[in-house]
Amino acid sequence: MVTVIGIDPGLANTGWGIIETDGIRFKYITHGTINTTNKLPSNLRLKSIYDQLSDIIDKYKPSHAGIETLYFAKNVVSALPVAQARGVQLLTLGNKGIITGEYTPIQIKQSVVGNGRATKIQVQEMVKLLLKLKAIPKPDHAADALAAAICHVHSVRTANV
Amino acid sequence: MVTVIGIDPGLANTGWGIIETDGIRFKYITHGTINTTNKLPSNLRLKSIYDQLSDIIDKYKPSHAGIETLYFAKNVVSALPVAQARGVQLLTLGNKGIITGEYTPIQIKQSVVGNGRATKIQVQEMVKLLLKLKAIPKPDHAADALAAAICHVHSVRTANV
Repeated sequence: MVTVIGIDPGLANTGWGIIETDGIRFKYITHGTINTTNKLPSNLRLKSIYDQLSDIIDKYKPSHAGIETLYFAKNVVSALPVAQARGVQLLTLGNKGIITGEYTPIQIKQSVVGNGRATKIQVQEMVKLLLKLKAIPKPDHAADALAAAICHVHSVRTANV
Repeated sequence: MVTVIGIDPGLANTGWGIIETDGIRFKYITHGTINTTNKLPSNLRLKSIYDQLSDIIDKYKPSHAGIETLYFAKNVVSALPVAQARGVQLLTLGNKGIITGEYTPIQIKQSVVGNGRATKIQVQEMVKLLLKLKAIPKPDHAADALAAAICHVHSVRTANV
């Protein structure tokens, strides 16, 4: 069994989810969010993300990770702080030696639903189905993170890594 | 004497410089660049930045840092990877407990030259003058990093921190 962490990057709220897989079936383990307050200066806010994500990795010991890419059509000003947080998340995975795949929202939708233009709710319903959950995981960021983890498993399976 | 590191953030090339100050005079210590290759996947590239910057901090033991903000008027696609790298640099400073100030290019020009619309060469000439150097530090990124360090000293002096 391989343990995979999925991450939906953010600065104030980052979704994460842990699944196990034998390459065919999925087992849901847990999910949650990493939260930071804008009352902290940015370097300490990033340190808080690093510390929280490090603790999650130490606890669940994933060997693989799937992390969503950022897509900002317009507002570069709001994109940069989120990109800085995502950089810290990629670093944390790198520091822990985790094999990491990065996936666009379209790739994740294609992988989880079979349709790159699927709606958010379609993705969430498929996450619920594939992980045999009784309800859609909340909040949305965590459901998106679990979708990123599932996408990574599909991707690695195809690549025969 | 206080040791200050200045950083001009980048992904492929990050400028850095170290100065000492008693709050009035400056003493140049050294400068350089942190380089990464685009042949590495992004999480290992960010890890390389983290490791290189950590080594510099461990060697010169700055207690303060001045780091330039990013300014991207147009191209968000090229901005995001640099923002990710800058996030890792802010994190590295946070993990080392370094008091960090973030400054826009205009603030740095205003602080170093006395004119927020100064040219790049004017900034570099003032860096050379203030640090009593025989030549303008090369490459440009490192000169910009030393300017960020000087700006931080001016800023902290004004704030009486």
